[in-house]
Amino acid sequence: MPHSPAPDAFADFERLLADLPTGSAEAESAVRSRDLTLTKPAGSLGRLEELVRFVARWQENPEPELVNPMVAIFAGNHGVTRQGVSAYPPEVTAQMVANFTAGGAAIAQICKLHEFNLRVFELALDLPTGDITEEPAMDERTCAATIAYGMEAIAGRPDLLAVGEMGIGNTTVAAAVCAALFGGTGADWVGRGTGVDDAGLTRKADAVDRALTRHRDGLASPFEALAAVGGRELAAMAGAIIAARHNKVPVIVDGFVATAASAVLYALNPAALDHCLFGHVSAENAHAKALAAMGKTPLMDLGMRLGEGTGAALAMVMVKTALHLHANMATFEAAAVATRAG
Amino acid sequence: MPHSPAPDAFADFERLLADLPTGSAEAESAVRSRDLTLTKPAGSLGRLEELVRFVARWQENPEPELVNPMVAIFAGNHGVTRQGVSAYPPEVTAQMVANFTAGGAAIAQICKLHEFNLRVFELALDLPTGDITEEPAMDERTCAATIAYGMEAIAGRPDLLAVGEMGIGNTTVAAAVCAALFGGTGADWVGRGTGVDDAGLTRKADAVDRALTRHRDGLASPFEALAAVGGRELAAMAGAIIAARHNKVPVIVDGFVATAASAVLYALNPAALDHCLFGHVSAENAHAKALAAMGKTPLMDLGMRLGEGTGAALAMVMVKTALHLHANMATFEAAAVATRAG
Repeated sequence: MPHSPAPDAFADFERLLADLPTGSAEAESAVRSRDLTLTKPAGSLGRLEELVRFVARWQENPEPELVNPMVAIFAGNHGVTRQGVSAYPPEVTAQMVANFTAGGAAIAQICKLHEFNLRVFELALDLPTGDITEEPAMDERTCAATIAYGMEAIAGRPDLLAVGEMGIGNTTVAAAVCAALFGGTGADWVGRGTGVDDAGLTRKADAVDRALTRHRDGLASPFEALAAVGGRELAAMAGAIIAARHNKVPVIVDGFVATAASAVLYALNPAALDHCLFGHVSAENAHAKALAAMGKTPLMDLGMRLGEGTGAALAMVMVKTALHLHANMATFEAAAVATRAG
Repeated sequence: MPHSPAPDAFADFERLLADLPTGSAEAESAVRSRDLTLTKPAGSLGRLEELVRFVARWQENPEPELVNPMVAIFAGNHGVTRQGVSAYPPEVTAQMVANFTAGGAAIAQICKLHEFNLRVFELALDLPTGDITEEPAMDERTCAATIAYGMEAIAGRPDLLAVGEMGIGNTTVAAAVCAALFGGTGADWVGRGTGVDDAGLTRKADAVDRALTRHRDGLASPFEALAAVGGRELAAMAGAIIAARHNKVPVIVDGFVATAASAVLYALNPAALDHCLFGHVSAENAHAKALAAMGKTPLMDLGMRLGEGTGAALAMVMVKTALHLHANMATFEAAAVATRAG
């Protein structure tokens, strides 16, 4: 069933990706200078120091701060669940969305403890995308509209945005997107997701392979691939990442599914993710492979595979801590601590 | 200059190390059971789940909690600094101790942000230990007294103890201790510490080699090695770790120097560190090697090399978060979320 052609559906986004702000080298430099005055050996806070410079550059702020750190979770449903690709039934997506709001989910409790704002974007949960083994996930107009909707994530004016997702079946479509962008077969990109058994894993790989075959003539451009074999929450995350770039909001990308969404942008312009920190490498099989394919080094490796933005939120705790240190540590001069010998 | 023989100086500690509590398997099991009821796929929080079980086992508490998380910093001075082994002058040790108390140091700001108690143990800063290239760091009675003093770290009744240090010159003595315990030469175990240049690094390796030669007949037992080529803060940290084990206090060990202190106990009984989490692997050259020699997997790798307990304190943030999730997440039943399909 060919989808309706919409050659210009993605033109606006392609324009945004062709004309990317590069952040403020001056702000980064100001941070580097202050850092050398703080009471510690230069460089001794390692990646924490990098995080401060990263936030300064992309906030374009020489005194980077977190006044409104936000975790955005995008939730979608997927027709491909009928292929038996998940350990959980699809109604769990909506149930978990309710659990985010009620405060019972892991991400809600991380946000509560560390004082992050949590926003949940439901993406037509009662209208699952097409089963990618048989039809496109979305037509291109729907995909474009969903990218645009995802751009709303920054309407709340976050100064740091963690991007995560919820969607039973979405590690399958993320695997299909990665295979479309990076090459390889289903087996290269699928993993156990929420915990499928060996038979389920085989069904996942097979579903991805059938989707790739079914859509082989419609995967040429990254956005077309997103529409054909992706999902609504992936489209929305891609939109959020683009919008953040154009509005001085650094981003923390969560796990495999969020990384697959970001990879769509990377495929169009490798610089598109320069304002993104990859919060962790998850235990999902192909996350490390997707990160490596883009040359990205994750901040942490805690063996997590929950999604919901949880890995990104833990990385946000590290960013919050790094910014707090940079702003509040004493200088050598103020503390009357001797500098280097000799 | 042979030190005065004191064959029984360490007998009490050796007894404590020979009769170690093993924690509560029941508490760990209770955590495992509750964990399976929480609204997430089983195992999906990875090492965070392990952290909760770890704290439960060693607190011997089926509902593990952090009411009094404490970071203890042990500060000492070292005669070996006269060998030109540090980028900073020795008076920085006392200056940084003042900075811990005044709140300007990195560890003070981490503790403030995350509500950890900070205790600083000054170890006769005006009496540096002997220059290990020429004499023992301490006689065995002093070493034993310092171990006993370090046991006081738990007097404040922490329910989780992060162990860190400050001491200009102490990566040199830590390297000597590691070489004495694990074998190898100075070059195998020294690193840039606070930031020595190539010439300083050569001086460090040479100082360690001369110390090992000077004391070659006095390194047979781990405690003797600690006295001969170690330092006061290493002895005190070893004491803190022993005391914690006997008082249901799990421990987070910080960087290379703290790990070297813990290695003294490991050499006497490999089970002595079962209640210890290694918070991070630092950028100091030989930290990864020391951890590998003991089969320990650090929680994080953030390229840090500051000491002061900073890596352990960041790991404590992760433990605090993990315990908060375990205690506060909704169960599948309470949140009306469907469990696995089929």
